[in-house]
Amino acid sequence: MYCGLCASDPGALAGQFGDVSPGAVAGHEIVGEVIRVGPKAEGLAVGDIVGIGAQCDSCRECEWCKDHEEQFCPEMTFSISTPLGPYRRGAAAGRQAQGGFAKFWRGPSRFAIKVPEGLDPAAAAPLFCGGITVFSPLNYNGAGTRAKRVGVVGIGGLGHMAIMLAKAMGAEVTAISRGEAKKADALKLGATKYIATSSDPEKDFADHKRTLDLIICTISKPDDATASLTLDPPSLDVNAYVSLLRPRGKFTMVGFASQPIMPVFQPQLIHNSADMGGSQIGSPDEIRQMLDLAAKHNVLPWIQKYNMDDINQALVDFKAGKPAYRFVLVNTDNGGKM
Amino acid sequence: MYCGLCASDPGALAGQFGDVSPGAVAGHEIVGEVIRVGPKAEGLAVGDIVGIGAQCDSCRECEWCKDHEEQFCPEMTFSISTPLGPYRRGAAAGRQAQGGFAKFWRGPSRFAIKVPEGLDPAAAAPLFCGGITVFSPLNYNGAGTRAKRVGVVGIGGLGHMAIMLAKAMGAEVTAISRGEAKKADALKLGATKYIATSSDPEKDFADHKRTLDLIICTISKPDDATASLTLDPPSLDVNAYVSLLRPRGKFTMVGFASQPIMPVFQPQLIHNSADMGGSQIGSPDEIRQMLDLAAKHNVLPWIQKYNMDDINQALVDFKAGKPAYRFVLVNTDNGGKM
Repeated sequence: MYCGLCASDPGALAGQFGDVSPGAVAGHEIVGEVIRVGPKAEGLAVGDIVGIGAQCDSCRECEWCKDHEEQFCPEMTFSISTPLGPYRRGAAAGRQAQGGFAKFWRGPSRFAIKVPEGLDPAAAAPLFCGGITVFSPLNYNGAGTRAKRVGVVGIGGLGHMAIMLAKAMGAEVTAISRGEAKKADALKLGATKYIATSSDPEKDFADHKRTLDLIICTISKPDDATASLTLDPPSLDVNAYVSLLRPRGKFTMVGFASQPIMPVFQPQLIHNSADMGGSQIGSPDEIRQMLDLAAKHNVLPWIQKYNMDDINQALVDFKAGKPAYRFVLVNTDNGGKM
Repeated sequence: MYCGLCASDPGALAGQFGDVSPGAVAGHEIVGEVIRVGPKAEGLAVGDIVGIGAQCDSCRECEWCKDHEEQFCPEMTFSISTPLGPYRRGAAAGRQAQGGFAKFWRGPSRFAIKVPEGLDPAAAAPLFCGGITVFSPLNYNGAGTRAKRVGVVGIGGLGHMAIMLAKAMGAEVTAISRGEAKKADALKLGATKYIATSSDPEKDFADHKRTLDLIICTISKPDDATASLTLDPPSLDVNAYVSLLRPRGKFTMVGFASQPIMPVFQPQLIHNSADMGGSQIGSPDEIRQMLDLAAKHNVLPWIQKYNMDDINQALVDFKAGKPAYRFVLVNTDNGGKM
């Protein structure tokens, strides 16, 4: 029915995650109706509306799978651009996983998560990758509880969902973005503070040092106007952002930098017993938790719809930075609504 | 009675933390007998054996002081080399804090912690700075519980205590040090695994990737033979150490690097939802917790004693890397025992 368009899709098609095999299909924020259920499928029935995110399989046997943190399974299968994992026996084993820019999709039930009633399935699509990417670190680090003051760097596809989700979790959100262009949107999304950055973050942050418990950084370069494109220079001023952290705070990056980021000045990490790190997607259990939160608090990503037939135009517009803040492709043949 | 000799002492005397005022006295692992108690002192009596670490005062009024994480008080006073904080009113306010390379010491009761009965006061001294510096991140990050597999980088003053404390907390400890020189000591201290490093950490760690939940890094340059000296080049291969982390793992630095550390390759932090960061000393409550653990599990730092009168020779020997693994100065006039 629907598939969100995430930065990793053009990235994968451009070879960011390795060679692209002929006939590769991207798309990993997939929402649709269950039309067939295999004999070993669990918890799903024909007619259910489900979503699949960036992970579509794992080994089921390792400690991480058993602990329901399947995103760390060493045999995990990304929904696009990686070979199908060991759970796919027989003819399918070793074939490349295919995504949701398609009419139909088939995969293991464990990674098909029901969309709760009351949550618009089209708006839910971007939650399955972009949403969980920011929800997981918000959740793991206690946004709204022990991390009351949350910063979100970059107001794009991921950042706008991070603001909404953090607010729904009870956090006080500070949005951080270049210039004033996105201030109005950030406040509308639920931020209560806004820090406009310039080419001199030290100066921009002078009045805000030691104010945030947790920062989710969705960009990996200084100018978030093109935050959604991930092959970028190693120029994010990490040290300036870390100076915003309160003691025990954490600066978490969710946007890949293909090159090493700038040298880290570690005394400020030591003085505040603070951390910097990364986070990658989240488990099926966490996706369920996020969807329930979204349904309860009416968290609806801001989307623009494209007909699935217009995928090529959508990719062009995406690369031009036009999403405000997420594109969703609509498969009208299967009941998707424009 | 006793005072440990920590790397920050020669550091402070050399101006590492700012200008050194004439007559400055270092020493911040102080253990002695209470001989006078002021009218506002709490919980102490003449005759008690107490210790004072790297922090000797704080404001008592900020959120961190109220939450018993006084080490984050913005007005915290280091026991050496910083001006006395706002709690010292009157004539003393603004005067430089003086340390424990002395016959007597005077300070607020809040930062004088009782040494439990059954713990040798001389061996306890190094716990008050070096010990709490490694205990705090071990404790905060759940060593022995959610962080079962702990790595300790650098077997020196801090590292040897980290191995003993982590083992006492129930962790499985991997010691990481240059060459094989310290292997026997590391195993004797309680490590069950040992990784010898060379000039090629990528190769050294090839068989150990994704094996550790928490790494306490006590060095800030590649060669831990001189780990205790902190004014050093920015050459620690952080990325190699981070590759040892399991998912949700953390690489915590407790040794200051005066220059920015090498550029960080963040995709491996993202893929494992891992962190790197720092940690600085710990609160009086944490010191109490550590001392109780040490008394219960007979954690005794390996010390060599010097008479307090021989402090200048001790500093020379310290800089030459001779401690194995901590020097303790003995004030025989006041009941310290050689």
